[in-house]
Amino acid sequence: MANLKSFIEVGATSHFPIQNLPYGVFKPSQNDTPRIGVAIGDFVADLSAIADLSLFDGPLLKGTKVFHQDALNSFMSLGKPAWTEARKTLQSLLSAENPTIRDNKTFREKIFYSLCSVIMLLPANIGDYTDFYASKEHATNVGIMFRGKENALMPNWVHIPVGYHGRSSSIVVSGTNLKRPWGQTKGDDDAAPTFTTCKLLDFELEMAALIGVGNQLGEPIPIAKAKDHIFGLVLLNDWSARDIQKWEYVPLGPFLGKNFGSTISPWVVTMDALEPFAVSGPTQDPKPLSYLEEQGNNSYDVQLSVSLKSPKMTEPQTISNSNLKYMYWSLTQQLAHHSVNGCNLRTGDLLGTGTISGPTPDSFGSMLEICWKGTKPLSLSSGEERKFIQDGDTVTMTGVCKGDGYQIGFGECVGTILPANK
Amino acid sequence: MANLKSFIEVGATSHFPIQNLPYGVFKPSQNDTPRIGVAIGDFVADLSAIADLSLFDGPLLKGTKVFHQDALNSFMSLGKPAWTEARKTLQSLLSAENPTIRDNKTFREKIFYSLCSVIMLLPANIGDYTDFYASKEHATNVGIMFRGKENALMPNWVHIPVGYHGRSSSIVVSGTNLKRPWGQTKGDDDAAPTFTTCKLLDFELEMAALIGVGNQLGEPIPIAKAKDHIFGLVLLNDWSARDIQKWEYVPLGPFLGKNFGSTISPWVVTMDALEPFAVSGPTQDPKPLSYLEEQGNNSYDVQLSVSLKSPKMTEPQTISNSNLKYMYWSLTQQLAHHSVNGCNLRTGDLLGTGTISGPTPDSFGSMLEICWKGTKPLSLSSGEERKFIQDGDTVTMTGVCKGDGYQIGFGECVGTILPANK
Repeated sequence: MANLKSFIEVGATSHFPIQNLPYGVFKPSQNDTPRIGVAIGDFVADLSAIADLSLFDGPLLKGTKVFHQDALNSFMSLGKPAWTEARKTLQSLLSAENPTIRDNKTFREKIFYSLCSVIMLLPANIGDYTDFYASKEHATNVGIMFRGKENALMPNWVHIPVGYHGRSSSIVVSGTNLKRPWGQTKGDDDAAPTFTTCKLLDFELEMAALIGVGNQLGEPIPIAKAKDHIFGLVLLNDWSARDIQKWEYVPLGPFLGKNFGSTISPWVVTMDALEPFAVSGPTQDPKPLSYLEEQGNNSYDVQLSVSLKSPKMTEPQTISNSNLKYMYWSLTQQLAHHSVNGCNLRTGDLLGTGTISGPTPDSFGSMLEICWKGTKPLSLSSGEERKFIQDGDTVTMTGVCKGDGYQIGFGECVGTILPANK
Repeated sequence: MANLKSFIEVGATSHFPIQNLPYGVFKPSQNDTPRIGVAIGDFVADLSAIADLSLFDGPLLKGTKVFHQDALNSFMSLGKPAWTEARKTLQSLLSAENPTIRDNKTFREKIFYSLCSVIMLLPANIGDYTDFYASKEHATNVGIMFRGKENALMPNWVHIPVGYHGRSSSIVVSGTNLKRPWGQTKGDDDAAPTFTTCKLLDFELEMAALIGVGNQLGEPIPIAKAKDHIFGLVLLNDWSARDIQKWEYVPLGPFLGKNFGSTISPWVVTMDALEPFAVSGPTQDPKPLSYLEEQGNNSYDVQLSVSLKSPKMTEPQTISNSNLKYMYWSLTQQLAHHSVNGCNLRTGDLLGTGTISGPTPDSFGSMLEICWKGTKPLSLSSGEERKFIQDGDTVTMTGVCKGDGYQIGFGECVGTILPANK
């Protein structure tokens, strides 16, 4: 794997070597039509151009138009054999040994765009968005803060990959700025709520699985087959208005505290690319019920980090280093649970992991936890302090898998908070 | 209004006089393409045929293809002026005085299908589905059962139209049968949960608003303009697995207890048709915050009923009579609240009201309330008893507005519960 090289030069710190080939939707410039591409080094390879040049010659993709689309849904709905064929074809076409594109200037001009010149769009038409709550550290931290150490974890938490429905309309692609929301909040000592701007704006460091192939209503996906339904992963910032959330969430869960915006990274890293980084997740005790039992590695070693940059700072400052492998409930357990009652998943649905916090304070995945409900403010390099996110602050998340002689990454998931409406 | 008559004969008990003209998506037969129609008496008028005959001659719909679609989204996205033009054109074309269609046999053959012969589909591509909790009687009943009379209503309930995100993928059209779900449940005295079939399956009597025109992310819809964003209403049965819901819902809300299926009626009754039945809703005390304050009638007098039919029964038995006007929080308050944080609504989004229970036990909108947590079983005409819904039971919901000399209705929202998977 490590020996595989592309004729495209890929720097050692690039997220996008030939081992990765993440899929995304892009426009070469504002007035162009969207199409599908893969990232390679500092370039995007336009798969609609590769298709137009009849270079997808495998049985499932020959003559395909699935890459001439503004979303990955058509391609994803073809299923795992087509994903494997595409990856195999692209790794061959882009390899250092293959002259087909390498030595054809016309082909290269039609296919490659500079990564920094293109406009990235949402990778999929997301039908339903579900968010889980799968990090034991995060659930425990939040539980301690709100209910005390003795009652930190709810009794159901160790039995159920707890999740809830989120809002798909307000999922935006990395780089989209979001306004601070208005809403109802009520202090513990206030007699009545106030309509005001959010004062406790937070990020949540998450990853999310994009469903490639769904299931029919009434037909659950067994856990042993769950992985084949996942096309790939992205980074997710589940922005949260803690004060709005606190007042509204009993008894039906978070609503306006979450749905003003959620940011995902544009590049979808496939399960095939992630496979070399599979690891086992935490030991589960008690043993999960039968429909959640699984064998072998069910997690991935993805090093995650969050940085914050205020308008006064010249460089972003890393404020958290976490890892997908800390997650207690696996992606496949989440998926099996989601469909066990017959709920149908569809191509393009997104399943967020919930905030991924690690065991130590420097690996916590939200300001709520990092600053422990505002009691331990962060010192920024500018001399400023932060308990929550302020207007103009930029939050950037990254994820990298470090291999032997190469690394693959997720690029960035970035967003800036703008002032609230007047 | 009452004097308006169609050349199509409409019986006194029909839900679909010319004053109604609800929109739906239908196929004349299994192999036909879906298209848009309106119901009139015992017929469906095919609007794609009317368009093909160039009978939509207004400025906004002339030459339109919005009715040659498998969903109302394209038509709805044109906005209120186009909805008004369509209604005006159709009321004219279908009126007893207008000979255009009335006296043209070829036109009539192209346009009309018998209502009982067509296949009805979901009326819209539903992007996001939100469910509210807007009936004070329902929230109080459930609160009394779970927390006692003193703490029945949560403190936030009188300030917030409490809502949560539901699942859009599993919304099905009336007539679709649903399997009893499997899931985790845990009795109060059990040490650990069990994976089993749902034992406490319930319906919830609701209505739902279909969003016609949405808003941009970050741009709230003021309550004074909220009504113009709603295209119309449907009936909604928010099937609920009470035992699954009870164990899973803390702290993030209902999930698998709800998302195994939700049924809506196929005909969308427009806000224009409902306007003669506008009434004022309950007095709100305390006064809502400014962004939820509204003037004038904000509710509708829609008489709702629920019937149950077990496989042993020859006739369905009415088990609840309620009314949309009992709802504490109005549809427009729900919509204004939903977007006040900048959350974007899209054409085709569905906003459920939550269970609509009235003040007396015969107007409660769920088995949970009617049978008061199983303590007051229902006696059926077959001699059977019911505390919750059993396999083979059919639940039918209807809604009617009684006018002076005419009535308009929603048709039926019907579903049968099938046995669980083995």
